[in-house]
Amino acid sequence: MATETAETLKVVGTRPIRHDGADKVTGRAVYGPDMRLPGMLHGKVLRSPHAHANIRSIDASKAAAHPGVHAVVTGADFPVARDREENLGGEGAINFRFLSSNIMAQHKVVYKGHAVAAVAAVSPHVAEEALALIQVDYEVLPSVMSAREAMKDGAPILHQELTTKTMADRSGKREDTGVVSNVATHLQLTLGDVEEGFKAADLVLEREYATASVHQGYIEPHAATVLWNADDNITIWASSQGTFGVRDQVAEVLRHPSSKIKVVPLEIGGGFGGKIIAYLPSVAALLSRKCGKPVKLVMTRSEVFEGTGPAPGTVVTAKMGVTREGRITAVEATLVYEAGGFPGAQVASGATCMLAPYAVENAVIHGYDVVVNKPKVQAYRAPGAPMSCFAIESLIDEVCEKLEMDPLEFRLLNGAKEGDRKTDGVKLPKIGYLETVQAAKGHQHYSTPLEGPYRGRGVASGYWGNAAFAASCTISVNSDGTVSLVEGSPDIGGSRTSVAMQAAEVLCLSAEDVHPSVVDTDSIGYTGLTAGSSTTFKQGWAAYEAAQSVVRLMRERAARIWELDAQGVEFTEGLFHSTADPELRMTFKELAGKLNATGGPIAANATLTPRGASPSYGTHIVDVEVDPETGKVQILRYTANQDAGRAIHPSYVEGQIQGGVAQGIGWALNEEYFFDEQGRMANASFLDYRMPTSLDLPMIDTVIVEVPNPGHPFGVRGVGETSISPPLAAVANAVSHAIGVRMSVLPMTPAKILEALWSKEGGNGRQ
Amino acid sequence: MATETAETLKVVGTRPIRHDGADKVTGRAVYGPDMRLPGMLHGKVLRSPHAHANIRSIDASKAAAHPGVHAVVTGADFPVARDREENLGGEGAINFRFLSSNIMAQHKVVYKGHAVAAVAAVSPHVAEEALALIQVDYEVLPSVMSAREAMKDGAPILHQELTTKTMADRSGKREDTGVVSNVATHLQLTLGDVEEGFKAADLVLEREYATASVHQGYIEPHAATVLWNADDNITIWASSQGTFGVRDQVAEVLRHPSSKIKVVPLEIGGGFGGKIIAYLPSVAALLSRKCGKPVKLVMTRSEVFEGTGPAPGTVVTAKMGVTREGRITAVEATLVYEAGGFPGAQVASGATCMLAPYAVENAVIHGYDVVVNKPKVQAYRAPGAPMSCFAIESLIDEVCEKLEMDPLEFRLLNGAKEGDRKTDGVKLPKIGYLETVQAAKGHQHYSTPLEGPYRGRGVASGYWGNAAFAASCTISVNSDGTVSLVEGSPDIGGSRTSVAMQAAEVLCLSAEDVHPSVVDTDSIGYTGLTAGSSTTFKQGWAAYEAAQSVVRLMRERAARIWELDAQGVEFTEGLFHSTADPELRMTFKELAGKLNATGGPIAANATLTPRGASPSYGTHIVDVEVDPETGKVQILRYTANQDAGRAIHPSYVEGQIQGGVAQGIGWALNEEYFFDEQGRMANASFLDYRMPTSLDLPMIDTVIVEVPNPGHPFGVRGVGETSISPPLAAVANAVSHAIGVRMSVLPMTPAKILEALWSKEGGNGRQ
Repeated sequence: MATETAETLKVVGTRPIRHDGADKVTGRAVYGPDMRLPGMLHGKVLRSPHAHANIRSIDASKAAAHPGVHAVVTGADFPVARDREENLGGEGAINFRFLSSNIMAQHKVVYKGHAVAAVAAVSPHVAEEALALIQVDYEVLPSVMSAREAMKDGAPILHQELTTKTMADRSGKREDTGVVSNVATHLQLTLGDVEEGFKAADLVLEREYATASVHQGYIEPHAATVLWNADDNITIWASSQGTFGVRDQVAEVLRHPSSKIKVVPLEIGGGFGGKIIAYLPSVAALLSRKCGKPVKLVMTRSEVFEGTGPAPGTVVTAKMGVTREGRITAVEATLVYEAGGFPGAQVASGATCMLAPYAVENAVIHGYDVVVNKPKVQAYRAPGAPMSCFAIESLIDEVCEKLEMDPLEFRLLNGAKEGDRKTDGVKLPKIGYLETVQAAKGHQHYSTPLEGPYRGRGVASGYWGNAAFAASCTISVNSDGTVSLVEGSPDIGGSRTSVAMQAAEVLCLSAEDVHPSVVDTDSIGYTGLTAGSSTTFKQGWAAYEAAQSVVRLMRERAARIWELDAQGVEFTEGLFHSTADPELRMTFKELAGKLNATGGPIAANATLTPRGASPSYGTHIVDVEVDPETGKVQILRYTANQDAGRAIHPSYVEGQIQGGVAQGIGWALNEEYFFDEQGRMANASFLDYRMPTSLDLPMIDTVIVEVPNPGHPFGVRGVGETSISPPLAAVANAVSHAIGVRMSVLPMTPAKILEALWSKEGGNGRQ
Repeated sequence: MATETAETLKVVGTRPIRHDGADKVTGRAVYGPDMRLPGMLHGKVLRSPHAHANIRSIDASKAAAHPGVHAVVTGADFPVARDREENLGGEGAINFRFLSSNIMAQHKVVYKGHAVAAVAAVSPHVAEEALALIQVDYEVLPSVMSAREAMKDGAPILHQELTTKTMADRSGKREDTGVVSNVATHLQLTLGDVEEGFKAADLVLEREYATASVHQGYIEPHAATVLWNADDNITIWASSQGTFGVRDQVAEVLRHPSSKIKVVPLEIGGGFGGKIIAYLPSVAALLSRKCGKPVKLVMTRSEVFEGTGPAPGTVVTAKMGVTREGRITAVEATLVYEAGGFPGAQVASGATCMLAPYAVENAVIHGYDVVVNKPKVQAYRAPGAPMSCFAIESLIDEVCEKLEMDPLEFRLLNGAKEGDRKTDGVKLPKIGYLETVQAAKGHQHYSTPLEGPYRGRGVASGYWGNAAFAASCTISVNSDGTVSLVEGSPDIGGSRTSVAMQAAEVLCLSAEDVHPSVVDTDSIGYTGLTAGSSTTFKQGWAAYEAAQSVVRLMRERAARIWELDAQGVEFTEGLFHSTADPELRMTFKELAGKLNATGGPIAANATLTPRGASPSYGTHIVDVEVDPETGKVQILRYTANQDAGRAIHPSYVEGQIQGGVAQGIGWALNEEYFFDEQGRMANASFLDYRMPTSLDLPMIDTVIVEVPNPGHPFGVRGVGETSISPPLAAVANAVSHAIGVRMSVLPMTPAKILEALWSKEGGNGRQ
C-alpha cells in the first residue's frame, strides 16, 4: 500500500483540465432543475406555516378538482415506514421512520416549512395556485426553538413516542431510558480519569460557546423528476450525493423493491452533505404513480432553507486543565446540539472530533441530541465537528493567553500522533497533524508582523476522520489506446478527474486518455455516497484495482501474441515487454489496437469496500481587522495548511480547502437562521441569509502537506471536510485579539462585535 | 460446454414477460426520431436526382444565407477516408473509403438518392426549403441498372479506380487483376472434382434464377442526433445494430479518435442488417461542429428506400448432377449479385450458404459482385443467402419431380451432418439439419392432403452459419437479492430478456430478478454488432460468465461469514451451503442482503469473444392457392421447422422464425424495387412497395427443434436469420406445383403468374 513514491508518479500530482469542464462552462451540463421529459407535469409542495402543530385533517378535494391538476398526495399516501436506522459512516445516520415523516408530515408538523401535501399540475404556476386550495386544519401547539429550552422540564414535547437513549461509546449501541423527552440521545465518551487529570492541572479554564443554525448554501436547489412506470419501475432523475443512497431511501420510504428503482445522476450544483437526503423523489414518485406521467419537483430557495436540513445550532461548555508548561491534563465538555424536528445524530461526530488533534489522556464528553421546532438538521461538511472544534480551539487560545504561550507551540506540545488514542477509544493511524502545525509555524504568514489597531491574528486546528464506502469501477480498453472508466460516484468537486488520474497512473496513460462516466444505479455496481471525503479515496482505489486487472489481462494478451507465459511479460513505463527478449515490446496503444483481432476486447471491474481511510488535519492562520465604528470584520489574510496524504489533483485539493475556509468564515461571521417568535425563519433568501462572496474574502492561501496514507495505493486522505472546522475558532481568536474581548457566540455579526466593544468600554457604549 | 441439460434448467426455456415491454406498449420507449435536446437544430439531406453523374460543382451559398439555416455540409467537409476494410463476420464487410463516399458523394453520384449535401436549420421545414437553394452542377452519365449489363464490355464504368479482385476461397485473400471493371470481386469456391461428378450423374439439370432488389423494411427510419461539443467530444443518440459499430464508423469516416465519440443507444424499430451502417451520424456531426448545437437528422421513408441499402438483386445459374437414386454427384453454380453503387461483399456469403445443407463432394461456385447504379446494398437478414438458397432449393425440387422422389426424402438422403465439408472447405460441427427434415416429414402438415385446383405444396431448406462477436457484461448484486445486468448489445428482438434469463439460470433467480440495461459506449466494454444471429449466443455467454463470477464471489463471502474455506461452500438450487455442516445455509437473497455489512457489495464483469457459434438449419412446408383470374397467391398454411440449439425464450425464437418467414414470403411474392429508364425508383413508399401485412398471412406455425450447440454453455444457436432463406423457394415450389409451371424469377407477382399461366396455355393467353 502507498507503494508508489512521489518520484515515480507521472499523472498523480499534476493538474489536467477536468473532463466535464467543457460541458459545464458552455452550459451543456444538465442539472436537476434542467430536466425535461415529454408529457412531464410540475409539482409543488405545500408546507406548514406553523412551527409546531397537530394536523387534524387535510381536505385536498378542491385542489384535486382544479383544472390542470393531475394528482395530489398527502402523508396518507405514504406507506408506514419501518423504524430502521442506517449508519452513514461519519455522515450521521438515517432513521427511515423519521425520514418518511420529515419528507411528508404524518399527523403533526414539527417545524415551519414541514411538507404536508403536494400537487402535480400542467405548470408550476397552476400547481402553486392549487396549493392554496388545500385546506389543512391545524391545532397549533407551543413551539420550542432552542435545545436548552427543549431540555427543560415542562417544555413542549415534539414526539410523544421519543424516549432518551444513552450511548456509552460510538459503537452505536444504545440503551433506552424509557423517559419521554426531547433529548433523543445522551452520549458519554470517557478516557482515563478526569478527576485525577484536573487535580494535576496548574490552570483550569471553563467556558461556554454557542453557534447558530447555518445552511450549506449549495447553489442548485433540490430537484427531482420521477416516472413511476406502468410496470412499477420507478426512474428518478436527480442530482444527489449518492444515486444508490437515493435509491435505498426511496425504496425504504415507499416500501418498493430497490431493484425496481433506477436513479439517473444529473450534474450537481453543490452538496456539502445536504444532498444526501432525498426529500423530493418519493413525493414526485407518488404523484407520478397517481397520474401516470413524469413529475418534476424543484424547490425554491425559501423551501431549501426551510424544508431541508441546516447544520445544528449548538451550545458547548468546555473545561480544560493544563500544567504550567502547557501540557493538557484533562478535558471535560458538554455538547448540546439541536436536532431540528427529528433526532439528528451529529453530536457523536462532534464529540469524537473535538479532541482528535490532541493527545489527551483524561477526558469526558457528554453529548445531547435534542429535538426542537426547527428544520431537521442534516450533514454539513464535517457534520458536527466545526462547533465542538470552535469551542476547544477557542478555549486553547485563551489558555495560551493565560500561559503566555505561543498557540502553535502549545499544539506542537500536545498534538496527536500515530498510536495516540482518541476519545472514542480508537487509536490513530499514521497522521500528519504535527506536520500541519510545523507548516503553519514555518509559514511566512506567521512570522509577518501584524500592525495597527483593531487587528488580530488567530490560529486553530481541525480534524476530520474521513469515511470509506463501497465503490465500483469498470474500465474497458478502446482500440485507439484510450480507456473508458465507469463509476458510480457523483462528481461534486472534480472526482471524475481525480479518479481517472489514478487509473491513468496505473495504465501509464494521460488523464485525457481515460474517459470517465458517472452512470445510473442499473449500470454500475453498488457505490456509496460522495460524502465523508471518501470519493477520491475509495473510487480512486476501485479505479486503481480495475486498472491493475486491465494490465494483467493485457500482459496475458501480449504473452499470447508472443507465445510466451504471462509471467514472461512485464508492463513498465507504458511498455509491455518480454523479460527475456528485448525485441518483444509494444506500447499500451499498440497492444490496444490489436485486442479485437487477438482474442477480443478487454475490460475489467472492481467492486470494493476499502478500509484504510485515514484522518486529515489542518492548521489555519487568519488575520482580521475590525471596524470599531460598524463592527464589520475584514479578513486580511488567510493561510490554510492541510495534510492531503497525497494530492492527486492539487488544484482540486486547494479548491476543497478554500471552499471549506470560505464556508467556515461565513459560519463565524455572518450566517444564521433568524426565527421570529412563532418559529418562522425571517431570512429565507440568499439576500437576507448572508453568505460570504468572493468580494468579501481575500485569496485564501493553501499549503498542501503530504504525509501519505499507508492505507491507500497512492497515499490518499480525504480532504473535503477538515478545512471547515478551524475557521470558526481561528477567526474568533483573531477577532478576540483584535478587540480585546473574547468572542464565544457565533456568528460574530457587527451587532455582536459592537456590543462586545461597548461592554469592554464599561457597558455604556451604546450611543 | 452445454453442460446444462434440459431437465435441470429452471429459467431457460420459459416465457417471461420482456423487461422493456411496459415502456414499449405505453409509448415511453425513446426511438431515434423521438430524440429532443435543448437548442437542437433539424437537418435535411439533399440527394442526387440522377442515377449516375459527375458533380462539377456545388454552390451552397444561397442556402447558407437563408434565414434559419445554421450550417451546410458537402463532400468537401469530409476528411479523406482511408482505404481500409473491416470484416463483419458473415454480415459482409465495410470499406471505409466507399462508406465515406456513400454517406456523402465525393465528385460523383452513383445512384439516385445518393447524398450530396446537408443543412441544419431551426426546423425541418426551413431545412427542406434551404435544400432547394443548393445548386449542384451535374454532368449526367449513362447509367447501368443490372449486373448482367454492367459486366458487358462497353458498359458505363462506375469507378475508374475499381479493378476486379479474385478470391479463391473465403479467407479474404484477394488478388488484384488490375482490370478496371464493374466487377468488384470474382470469387471461386471449389470442392472435389466437378467434371468427374457430373460424369457419375444419371440426371443433370441446369436452370437460371433471378431475384429483385428488396428492402429490409424496418418501421423506424434512420435517425441520428449528434452534438459535437466544444471540447471535440462527440455524442451520438441513435438506434443502431451496434453502438460500437457506429462509433467505429464515425471515427473512421471523420478521422476522429473513437474514444472521443460516445454513442447512446435508443430503442430500435427494426434493423434486419440495415441498421449496421451509420449513414446519418457523421453528417449530423459535421453539421453540429459547424453550428455548435445538437443536430438531428431523420430520414423520410423515400430516403430510406433510396438512400440506404437493400438486398442485392441477383441472377444465379445452377447445375446439378444426381444418380438415379437421388444422390447428388456434382453442383456447379454462378452467382451474379448486384452491389449497388459501391462493392457489396454479399456474394461470398451466398456462395458459402448455398450448398451448406447438403453433403456435396464435387462443387464449383463462381460468385460475382458487380457495381450498378442502384443504392449500395447492405446486409438483410442472412445477407446473400436467400437468393442462392432460392436457386438450389428450386433446382432440387425440379430434380425430385424428374426422379419422382419425395423432396424431404431427397434431403434426408443428401443432408449434411457433423464432419461434412462445406464448399468453403470448413467442416461442419454438430448440427441439427436432418432433425429439421425429420420434423417436417413427421409434421401433420406434411401428411395432410392438399386438395383442390391451383393449389400446391412446397418445401425447402435453409442455412445460416451464425456469427459471434465480442460481448461485455457486468452484473452487480442488489441488496434485495436481485441483480443489475449491464450490456452493450442493442436489443432488437427481446435480447434483454434472453440474456437476462441466462444470468438468472446461473444465479437461480427469476428472469424478473435480473434487471438488464443496454448502455452507451463509454459505459460498457467493447461489444460487437447485434447481427449475425449472435446476440443471445454471445451476450448470453458473457452474462453466463459474469454470473459465474458473481456466484464465486458470493461463495467466498458466505465462506467468510461462516469462517470456512471458499471450497467448503457450494451453491445449488439457489442455496449457498456448507458442504460439511447442513445447518449453514443461506438463500441468494439472504446473502445478498448481508453483503454490504460483510465486506461490501459484489459485482463482476466478463468481456469475451466467444468461439463455438454453430449453424442453424430450417426446413419449411408451405401450401398455396393461386387465383387463376388475378394471379394472386394466397398462403394457405405455413410450417417452419428450425433448429435453435436450445431455445432460451421460445416465444422469441418463434417470433424470429415467423418474422423471417413473413419477410421471405414478401421477397417471394411481392417486394421489389421498380426503376424507370433513368434509374429512378418508382415505388419508394410503403404504399407502393408492397410488404406483406398480418392480413396477407396465415398464422405461421413453428416447430423448434433442439439439437444443443456443444459450443455454448446452454447450447444456444443463433436463430434470427436462417428462417428467411427457405420461404423463397418453398413458396416458388408450391406455386410451381399449383400452376404447373416452374417459377424461377422473383417476385412472383400476379402479372408474372398470369404470364406463366398463359405461356402454359400456348402463349396466347393474354386476353
